[in-house]
Amino acid sequence: MKRFAITNCGPILTMAGAQIRAGRRMSDLGAVDGGSILIENGLITEITNAQPDCEQIDAGGRTVTPGLIDSHTHAVFAGSRANEYEMRARGDSYQDIAAAGGGILSTVKSVREADEDGLWKQSLKHAQWMLDTGTTTAEIKSGYGLTLEDELKMLRVIRDLGSETPLDTHATLLAAHAVPPEFKRDKDGWMQTICEEIIPAARELIEAVDIFIEQGYFDANDARQLAEAAKKHGLALRMHVDQLTNSGGAKLAAELRAVSADHLEQTTGDGVRELRRYGVFPVLLPGSVYALGLSRYPNARLMIDEGLPVVLATDFNPGSSPTPSLQMVMSFACTHMAMTPAEALTACTANPAALLGIADHAGRIEPGMQADLVIWDTDDYRDIPYYFGVNHAHTVIKKGRVL
Amino acid sequence: MKRFAITNCGPILTMAGAQIRAGRRMSDLGAVDGGSILIENGLITEITNAQPDCEQIDAGGRTVTPGLIDSHTHAVFAGSRANEYEMRARGDSYQDIAAAGGGILSTVKSVREADEDGLWKQSLKHAQWMLDTGTTTAEIKSGYGLTLEDELKMLRVIRDLGSETPLDTHATLLAAHAVPPEFKRDKDGWMQTICEEIIPAARELIEAVDIFIEQGYFDANDARQLAEAAKKHGLALRMHVDQLTNSGGAKLAAELRAVSADHLEQTTGDGVRELRRYGVFPVLLPGSVYALGLSRYPNARLMIDEGLPVVLATDFNPGSSPTPSLQMVMSFACTHMAMTPAEALTACTANPAALLGIADHAGRIEPGMQADLVIWDTDDYRDIPYYFGVNHAHTVIKKGRVL
Repeated sequence: MKRFAITNCGPILTMAGAQIRAGRRMSDLGAVDGGSILIENGLITEITNAQPDCEQIDAGGRTVTPGLIDSHTHAVFAGSRANEYEMRARGDSYQDIAAAGGGILSTVKSVREADEDGLWKQSLKHAQWMLDTGTTTAEIKSGYGLTLEDELKMLRVIRDLGSETPLDTHATLLAAHAVPPEFKRDKDGWMQTICEEIIPAARELIEAVDIFIEQGYFDANDARQLAEAAKKHGLALRMHVDQLTNSGGAKLAAELRAVSADHLEQTTGDGVRELRRYGVFPVLLPGSVYALGLSRYPNARLMIDEGLPVVLATDFNPGSSPTPSLQMVMSFACTHMAMTPAEALTACTANPAALLGIADHAGRIEPGMQADLVIWDTDDYRDIPYYFGVNHAHTVIKKGRVL
Repeated sequence: MKRFAITNCGPILTMAGAQIRAGRRMSDLGAVDGGSILIENGLITEITNAQPDCEQIDAGGRTVTPGLIDSHTHAVFAGSRANEYEMRARGDSYQDIAAAGGGILSTVKSVREADEDGLWKQSLKHAQWMLDTGTTTAEIKSGYGLTLEDELKMLRVIRDLGSETPLDTHATLLAAHAVPPEFKRDKDGWMQTICEEIIPAARELIEAVDIFIEQGYFDANDARQLAEAAKKHGLALRMHVDQLTNSGGAKLAAELRAVSADHLEQTTGDGVRELRRYGVFPVLLPGSVYALGLSRYPNARLMIDEGLPVVLATDFNPGSSPTPSLQMVMSFACTHMAMTPAEALTACTANPAALLGIADHAGRIEPGMQADLVIWDTDDYRDIPYYFGVNHAHTVIKKGRVL
């Protein structure tokens, strides 16, 4: 349908009021009460109360929002870690399992063994889960290959998901996810390989680089080295920080002018103020807190009250956050992080659009924007986090195409 | 289709080994590796490796289990408490909200104001959510009417859901859910009304009675009175106990020979041993722990290790557990209660079938049983709790009817 209208909308949450870098207004959803949304050639052209003269989709009074944007995922992977999940249920810790050869390196093994077609097929299922639950744009990280060839294999699959499915993808190189077995006693050698070989070779496939700052993984020196390489190649820097221990990662992210600091479960006031001072997006990943059986969630309330544009994401991965659903993430945020349903919705639409640099065409419902929309099976958007375990997405529309 | 076969099954988890009242064997799923399930007139007639000569549904190698059984819900209700959900996100406690006129009595107001048709329409949506996520049988409680007429209205809707949708329903009278405003200073008068008027009038619509034992609600004396009335009318007794405070509720349930003690978040070893001694089913409701923002889950591990036939249920209600999804409940159990995926599946099939007294025709896949089946979109049943926030139910079959 080149030209059509979504008619009989209930509340249209345009997110026009949810101004980026003005966290205090994350609760303003720019709601328009009813009407029609006109779409032409994949773009939104008008929101109107007039009767449209083109093909129509009847929203039946349901709520319409922008398509959800998941800005931190590891959704391209092979193999299963259901066995490790069962081990954790029996009482083994995430660290125990990693020490026994499980954890990230277990997925690295599966991804290396998979050929590109196998990796594609499994990842396609993950992309479908995301689309089914209302996610129309996703950032996806490499980091389970950990050789030049295997990282490129992952990045090509991320690119192909973007071109061959309705999901828009944004690729991040996370070669600094873990030190691969080949560099077991030579972390510096691996950092050198990343900066001098992998980044230049992957340059055309990626928008950002990322690093996992944690005891036993990478440290501040590694991050500085990566930041320099990112700058040299014109790439954004993102950082996994302060997840299990507070190593001052938020401050480090600010110092290195990262675009985002992700996780932040252990970050306190000092770190939050540094993020604000340097305009770093906080990306909160409550799915991993839940799935690891922990109870300390990041302090979203403090961040929002300090004016930070909080972003929520799934962290979708086979180990610490096996969920593709931003709806469930919104439930965690409202149930365990004192975020309101309105703030949670902003944190899954307008804010991540700004983080990914796509706020000119995604994350809001306005004339000229890409027609990425979700019609939700309710007239009250608060039902999305409230009735959890239900997929509330009734119709998902990507670039004007009804999925 | 009077006679057909589900062919090309992956693992068929018959639950034949998950013997009731033998908790130690909750991990034995009676798995059959592949084959076909023959169905005739709504019943399972055979599990076979031979090529069937009738109409076929190709399971494509997917996992097949019995339909899930949700044995503790409040799924018939009117109105919404999304506003209270938002209040809780802003920091108000469940008790604060109840004191301000919210909580159970807010839903009582909505149910009383709704006519039977309005209550039916909203409850139908809830039933559809349950069926969509793999639940084929549900116990549903009254308790939001709290007058004779409004309790009967709820019970008729529960009955009609059972006759007019594919969901099998089992009705429980929970008039002892809260003291209604009309009896504000006369709890004894309300208990008398329940025992002498409501139970006799509701007798033909119900299988059990239930009572909420908690500070500010009902106590041991009320329970004893209800137990007597239940006995007199040949009804099973169920009890909400030890949810927010440990008042010795598990012991009380054992003393009164209740068929189940539900919640049990605060129950310790003594109580668990009493449940075992008198054969009381423990029904665990982790959705309410999660949704209330709490972190103390019931001690399922102790109960299973002591040989109790643990049951999991949603507690689906608009206040403390707004989820219709047993898949999500299994995730809570494996992620936060140290239950294995196998134990969680038994706790949602064979065990609740025994609790509800339907183990002769539901909860297992065997010749002669009702053809209540779920084909799951995975070849590894552990994915059901592992990848949370995904609806894994691929095809739901109720009494041989493909939904």
